[in-house]
Amino acid sequence: MSCDYLALAAAGVQKLHPYVPGKPVDELERELGLSNIVKLASNENPLGLSDSVKQAIQAEFDEGCRYPDGNGFVLKQALVNKFGVELDQITLGNGSNDVLELIARAFLSRESEVIFSQHAFAVYPIVTQAVGAKAVVTPAKNWGHDLDAMAEAITAATRLIFIANPNNPTGTWLSETQLRAFLDKVPATVLVVLDEAYTEYVDEAEFPNGVELLSDYSNLIVTRTFSKAYGLASLRVGYGLSNPQVADLLNRVRQPFNVNSFALAAAAAVLEDSDYLARSVEVNRLGMAQLEQGFKALGLEYIPSVGNFISLDLGRPAGPIYQSLLERGVIVRPVANYEMPNHLRISIGLETENQALLDALVQVLKS
Amino acid sequence: MSCDYLALAAAGVQKLHPYVPGKPVDELERELGLSNIVKLASNENPLGLSDSVKQAIQAEFDEGCRYPDGNGFVLKQALVNKFGVELDQITLGNGSNDVLELIARAFLSRESEVIFSQHAFAVYPIVTQAVGAKAVVTPAKNWGHDLDAMAEAITAATRLIFIANPNNPTGTWLSETQLRAFLDKVPATVLVVLDEAYTEYVDEAEFPNGVELLSDYSNLIVTRTFSKAYGLASLRVGYGLSNPQVADLLNRVRQPFNVNSFALAAAAAVLEDSDYLARSVEVNRLGMAQLEQGFKALGLEYIPSVGNFISLDLGRPAGPIYQSLLERGVIVRPVANYEMPNHLRISIGLETENQALLDALVQVLKS
Repeated sequence: MSCDYLALAAAGVQKLHPYVPGKPVDELERELGLSNIVKLASNENPLGLSDSVKQAIQAEFDEGCRYPDGNGFVLKQALVNKFGVELDQITLGNGSNDVLELIARAFLSRESEVIFSQHAFAVYPIVTQAVGAKAVVTPAKNWGHDLDAMAEAITAATRLIFIANPNNPTGTWLSETQLRAFLDKVPATVLVVLDEAYTEYVDEAEFPNGVELLSDYSNLIVTRTFSKAYGLASLRVGYGLSNPQVADLLNRVRQPFNVNSFALAAAAAVLEDSDYLARSVEVNRLGMAQLEQGFKALGLEYIPSVGNFISLDLGRPAGPIYQSLLERGVIVRPVANYEMPNHLRISIGLETENQALLDALVQVLKS
Repeated sequence: MSCDYLALAAAGVQKLHPYVPGKPVDELERELGLSNIVKLASNENPLGLSDSVKQAIQAEFDEGCRYPDGNGFVLKQALVNKFGVELDQITLGNGSNDVLELIARAFLSRESEVIFSQHAFAVYPIVTQAVGAKAVVTPAKNWGHDLDAMAEAITAATRLIFIANPNNPTGTWLSETQLRAFLDKVPATVLVVLDEAYTEYVDEAEFPNGVELLSDYSNLIVTRTFSKAYGLASLRVGYGLSNPQVADLLNRVRQPFNVNSFALAAAAAVLEDSDYLARSVEVNRLGMAQLEQGFKALGLEYIPSVGNFISLDLGRPAGPIYQSLLERGVIVRPVANYEMPNHLRISIGLETENQALLDALVQVLKS
């Protein structure tokens, strides 16, 4: 006996399309028999793990059969010391993806509406759909969030608004003045998630620090990750900062051991490794300049970005160019699923990796 | 401006009580200034990580800044080789806790009923409550699952049944004959989760292998973990095996990088480390005999267990005894939240750890 389990699934899940990750290097190697592959597809840190992280991981070996500390005491204390927040404002996640999902599961129902921008991070529609809530997508303005349109989209059913600052995959950003003006318009009953996954890379005088806004807006949740500038994508650790009542609700939904022991130890170590962070930011600054210059030399348009990635406008469907780059051993990210069919998102790599991309691009575009 | 965010939370979340983990060693050290603490509280493997796992972790260092393989290809292939299942039957989880939660989120709604037994694993009510579904708890029979009562509890609203074999914290088990007779009665539209977290420890001729039942029951989902006999609790990795359509739905709900790179590599390595598994099982067999003998010498009752833990019946409220053991540096698990207020669950440790527990118990009981 059997039956149609799709029909038995929860309403939201029946229509759920999972996130499509960047192609892993192993997979391309298996498929094409290539080596020396350059991956600039997932906004990963090109520096490799810091030595402080490797040491922290090895120091966990003796306790490797134990469950993680479900309260993440050591990492939370490190965050308290660094950002001046309170312990009870913190929600640790298995990557900030996990925190975004916890927020959706804690506060949304099938009756809720969720607002986010066109071209915004793909996880927002996924966590919304998974609980069967209604996504309200506002059109972008110059590739960035149109905060006026987002404020106007609020209804009595709105429970949550996602804002990425800077936004992935466009690299656009909102100033503190713009953000505060928006937050002043949002009712306290509507939660605003400020996703700051790339905040460490930004060097703009008017760029806001979400942590400093928390005391002014009880409905604000700031999410951050160790996957980017801190270089821990493999380990899965991110966090949310919010008012303690919201954090308590998120922690109720959180799996008791959602963050593994190695991630907890690595994140606490790298948070104090200011040299690593400074190098990450500097390598990114130089690499961004290198790519911008290369694109200009090729006469290619791009969206100016403050993240660790840049979206290149090819002026025609980018899929074939993505494929041709793959065949030359360079993995970048097609973003047609972000309603950007003519763009490719390219992560900033090491100088040699950036050059390999530029060289491959020259070949592909002239063929 | 502020508001009551509890009132804004999803219906199920408002009444959610999170899982209470065993007390971490660090925490007890901080609280009581003790060292040489013996933790027999979380059914962890006392052997420490296998050398094969430490090597696998170090081999991941070079790719530590990369996201994990979201498809978990290497680990899935290792599971295929070991168990003869197909790749598309596998759902990898951040511990089997994650898989249990994915099942609830993929298939339950506020209209669903979920059946599980009294004294069953605490995560079943939590994942049920988190989505706002209705828990139907059937009374235990001799501390174990009463399968007849569970079959009778099925209604048109039943979507899911959780069965733990063996069950934690009672250590009771169901034979293949009992389980098949039950599964034959369950409609194909009702999913049955067979939680085999402790299956590797069981040495009973009549004990079923869930993997072999999959081809006979399309509604069966078998869950297993690397946290127990394989010794990877710190790393968070478990898996579900089911028919491919069910696995596809679980994988839609799964976070794209739910299992970290170190866990994927460690699990693939330890799965082929048959020496480690054999030692885990043997140390457990000897330790179980040691504790049973010790309890008998003290005239204490216990529930016979086939897991890596044993629940001791103190014949009076166990809370004060738990506290007294803590003060002597021995952490065990109170199970009042399992409706077992007179029991303490004790994980099987190394010979010296088991002896330390027995010694502390003698002191506590005579004081």
